[in-house]
Amino acid sequence: MKTIKVREQILKANDRAAAENRAAFARERIAVVNLIGSPGSGKTAILERLAAHRELAFAVLEGDPETSLDAQRIERAGVPVVQIVTQGTCHLDAAMVHRALQELPLEGKPLLFIENVGNLVCPGSFDLGETARVVVFSAPEGEDKPLKYPGVFTTARAVVLNKIDLLPHLPFSLDRAVENLAQIVPRTPVFPLSCATGAGFDGFVEWLLELSARVVSI
Amino acid sequence: MKTIKVREQILKANDRAAAENRAAFARERIAVVNLIGSPGSGKTAILERLAAHRELAFAVLEGDPETSLDAQRIERAGVPVVQIVTQGTCHLDAAMVHRALQELPLEGKPLLFIENVGNLVCPGSFDLGETARVVVFSAPEGEDKPLKYPGVFTTARAVVLNKIDLLPHLPFSLDRAVENLAQIVPRTPVFPLSCATGAGFDGFVEWLLELSARVVSI
Repeated sequence: MKTIKVREQILKANDRAAAENRAAFARERIAVVNLIGSPGSGKTAILERLAAHRELAFAVLEGDPETSLDAQRIERAGVPVVQIVTQGTCHLDAAMVHRALQELPLEGKPLLFIENVGNLVCPGSFDLGETARVVVFSAPEGEDKPLKYPGVFTTARAVVLNKIDLLPHLPFSLDRAVENLAQIVPRTPVFPLSCATGAGFDGFVEWLLELSARVVSI
Repeated sequence: MKTIKVREQILKANDRAAAENRAAFARERIAVVNLIGSPGSGKTAILERLAAHRELAFAVLEGDPETSLDAQRIERAGVPVVQIVTQGTCHLDAAMVHRALQELPLEGKPLLFIENVGNLVCPGSFDLGETARVVVFSAPEGEDKPLKYPGVFTTARAVVLNKIDLLPHLPFSLDRAVENLAQIVPRTPVFPLSCATGAGFDGFVEWLLELSARVVSI
């Protein structure tokens, strides 16, 4: 079928650009995290909280269909950032990342976050050349998200369960969420945390430092 | 460019199927609402709440990348429902709706809800033949969603702002959210409501009854 062939061609072209990004990141010894989650799952808030952890030195590429609101937030947190506006496109691709990197000074930054467009489906199909994907989902979204959107969860190296400060006010069972994750991604570490209180960040920061140390030592 | 042409062809084929759906809905005098929102914005919970309003008689088509969890919830609420599993696809299309309608008894139902895949981008490009789109966004997602995802909001005939019961626990300004909506869709009615408490549902039910009455009287 013609449409499928074109989709394959688009993904192949993306894979080539992703391989180039990956080679460039390896040369610079930069660990790159592709942060994927629904709109409003708290991806930017997580980066704002991480900025306060001085042991992590990082830069950020922000992806959104419109506006540079997220880049403005990251800039206020004192972190180097470039905004990619996709003009309505539902995911980042490797070429967009390549172009944006021309404007982002990465010297001395062992870690780069790429915050993808808020979307729990499409970003899963596009390799950006990242070292690891981290999928964020938040308690108000409900425990069933890993079961209903397994595609993107199966590609994650870690899962962040955000907004646990809201648990007392939600019909949300943390145990059931963890069970659902175990059903889809039994070996993937899960970090329940809260950007409102800072709870749970230590474990996630440690995981990021290990990821970064592994890349530096290759 | 080839890929854009193929995209145009896909959208044209979808428009043809949507026109057929629209004609069928008109023959049956059924008002059809295409419900669009992020994963976990509360689309299914809204339908569960609406099921308790006996003045509304409706059926539901459920769209999800995987599982029939949402259809099970709607069935427990006593509403006729068919689940469309898109197998990873990020939106419903008109042909999927056409096929699902073969299995859904619509006699005596003046209203049909089509709950789209949780996604604030892609479903906006695919006409399903609906009478009206309703976009759901929820307070935990943040006030900036209409600004960052304007595409889908501009196609909405009404906006539901869900989970207002959580306002005391969130850094969310209802005024700012309404201002942001007014910037993108100044003439679109907005219904702030809560599925947890039932607050705000009366105005939304009235709007649905008017929509339904207009279709019957054509």
